[in-house]
Amino acid sequence: MHAINQYQEFFVTYLNTQSIAREPQNLYNPITYILGLGGKRMRPVLTLMAVEVFDVDYKKALPAAMAVEVFHNFSLVHDDIMDEAPLRRGQVTVHEKWDLNTGILSGDAMLILAYQYFEQYEPAVFMQLAKLFSKTALEVCEGQQWDVDFETRNDVTIEEYLKMIEYKTAVLVAAAMKMGAIVAGTSEENANFIYEFGLNLGIAFQLQDDYLDAFGNPETFGKQVGGDIIENKKTYLYLKAMEFSSNEVQTELQDLFASNPEDNTDKIEAVKALFNSSGASKITQDAMQEYTFKAFDTLDKMNISKDKKEILRAFGENLMGRKV
Amino acid sequence: MHAINQYQEFFVTYLNTQSIAREPQNLYNPITYILGLGGKRMRPVLTLMAVEVFDVDYKKALPAAMAVEVFHNFSLVHDDIMDEAPLRRGQVTVHEKWDLNTGILSGDAMLILAYQYFEQYEPAVFMQLAKLFSKTALEVCEGQQWDVDFETRNDVTIEEYLKMIEYKTAVLVAAAMKMGAIVAGTSEENANFIYEFGLNLGIAFQLQDDYLDAFGNPETFGKQVGGDIIENKKTYLYLKAMEFSSNEVQTELQDLFASNPEDNTDKIEAVKALFNSSGASKITQDAMQEYTFKAFDTLDKMNISKDKKEILRAFGENLMGRKV
Repeated sequence: MHAINQYQEFFVTYLNTQSIAREPQNLYNPITYILGLGGKRMRPVLTLMAVEVFDVDYKKALPAAMAVEVFHNFSLVHDDIMDEAPLRRGQVTVHEKWDLNTGILSGDAMLILAYQYFEQYEPAVFMQLAKLFSKTALEVCEGQQWDVDFETRNDVTIEEYLKMIEYKTAVLVAAAMKMGAIVAGTSEENANFIYEFGLNLGIAFQLQDDYLDAFGNPETFGKQVGGDIIENKKTYLYLKAMEFSSNEVQTELQDLFASNPEDNTDKIEAVKALFNSSGASKITQDAMQEYTFKAFDTLDKMNISKDKKEILRAFGENLMGRKV
Repeated sequence: MHAINQYQEFFVTYLNTQSIAREPQNLYNPITYILGLGGKRMRPVLTLMAVEVFDVDYKKALPAAMAVEVFHNFSLVHDDIMDEAPLRRGQVTVHEKWDLNTGILSGDAMLILAYQYFEQYEPAVFMQLAKLFSKTALEVCEGQQWDVDFETRNDVTIEEYLKMIEYKTAVLVAAAMKMGAIVAGTSEENANFIYEFGLNLGIAFQLQDDYLDAFGNPETFGKQVGGDIIENKKTYLYLKAMEFSSNEVQTELQDLFASNPEDNTDKIEAVKALFNSSGASKITQDAMQEYTFKAFDTLDKMNISKDKKEILRAFGENLMGRKV
């Protein structure tokens, strides 16, 4: 096994050997562009880690890891259109740099390219990977749709919210790891356990993202702190604050989430104060921990060496211990 | 073997048994809607025909036929967004009936659903189908991109135009037939020949579509006659008229294609007159015939019974003999 930053390096080196740019340039240049914007490459790294957890060389999982990364970037391109986002990783989004049609069509091509990376495996493995991929990709679309639907709903339950982040974020983390297991040819039990591990860690990670969006350190948090509050997003923090507040405080919070002031400083501080006083921030931190522990519990059931379990646990602790 | 309208019926009956509608409704309802708009179902019918040409029951090819139809409708949904089309088969387009985001996301889901239909085959067949499908789907995206690129170019060659319609239209017709061959498990030679047959017939069909768009009978042609002229589309007719006209007539045609009058009647008649006087309409009809004959030549090379060849030839003649 290697360190996370080594897997990142292996993956980026492989990514750079892939010559995606070809004719027509207006279709393929945006793909090279978005894939080149960087990021932590967390998902493909998980695929490489997972295959080595099951004692197979990471190189065998590179095409599957690439499929996961290409799919993730496809979803970013189409989501950025839907969110009318001008920036992604600090750079201009595809639909802004080119146009709407280019964003749609290049995204479509990426979804297909992702499937093509599985063609490097033999038929039985190809089919397992493509099946898992299709199921996951459809769930990601469903998660995105729930997210869109929730914007105009005022009766979203915690259960629905958790399902949404599970589909929109966690299933791809889980599938990325299971793909490593499939490539390694480990038992179905092990493959399902590592999926469960990734799923719970993915939910914990997204809850942490919600938490840090409000309470993170502006110096180190990648995105604008308070971004969710500015956009009036009904995150876990908001839903829990509503659940545990008096009618009076509920109204206060709803009013704040109906306002769109030019300067958001006061609004952000007021909302954060309510997140704290209602107990929502503590509850969110508890939920993060609960899902992390759930992930760790799955490790105990896996048929792999203690060292390997320790490596996965350390990865999870590192991921959830990010002080940003 | 059955008649075309029987295959249509078999396919539509199967389509109606597929319960695509599920939660979240805003993602799946548009899919049910677009798939229910009808149309000739030419592509899935070709898959069913093809499998029976190789002596296997059409029922075995129903999931593959469904994948082809779902993909075709995916491309319609995304193309209609790019073309800002308000209507499709006389009904409101998905992005008009819902909104842009729904059109993008439901389209994405359809592309994934198409792959899932191949999961009903065993791994080796699954892989052959999915590989052909990915290659074809990517070519369709490339064809669409060329089409978009050509709008702002004045130096499109006939060769480039033919490549564009091959990718945008013909490869899917070809792949639809080859999928029937793959499901039937016939020889690779036969599979490639039926692909060639479909490819050339698909090109002939698209050239005919260009021709009928100008010279078709408004009573029976499905679309608005003169639509390409109104939109100043550089079709085969236009490119050939430019090739075979004096500088003076070229300028006349270019001026007409730079104009956007409120009442298009005179413009359409003037352009049609130039298509005729330049010889472009005759050349286009000749090209249609040439590609049709090319398709028929491929039949001779196939290792199937004379009856089957006759059925495929009759289908081609029927398709190319449409008097609309």
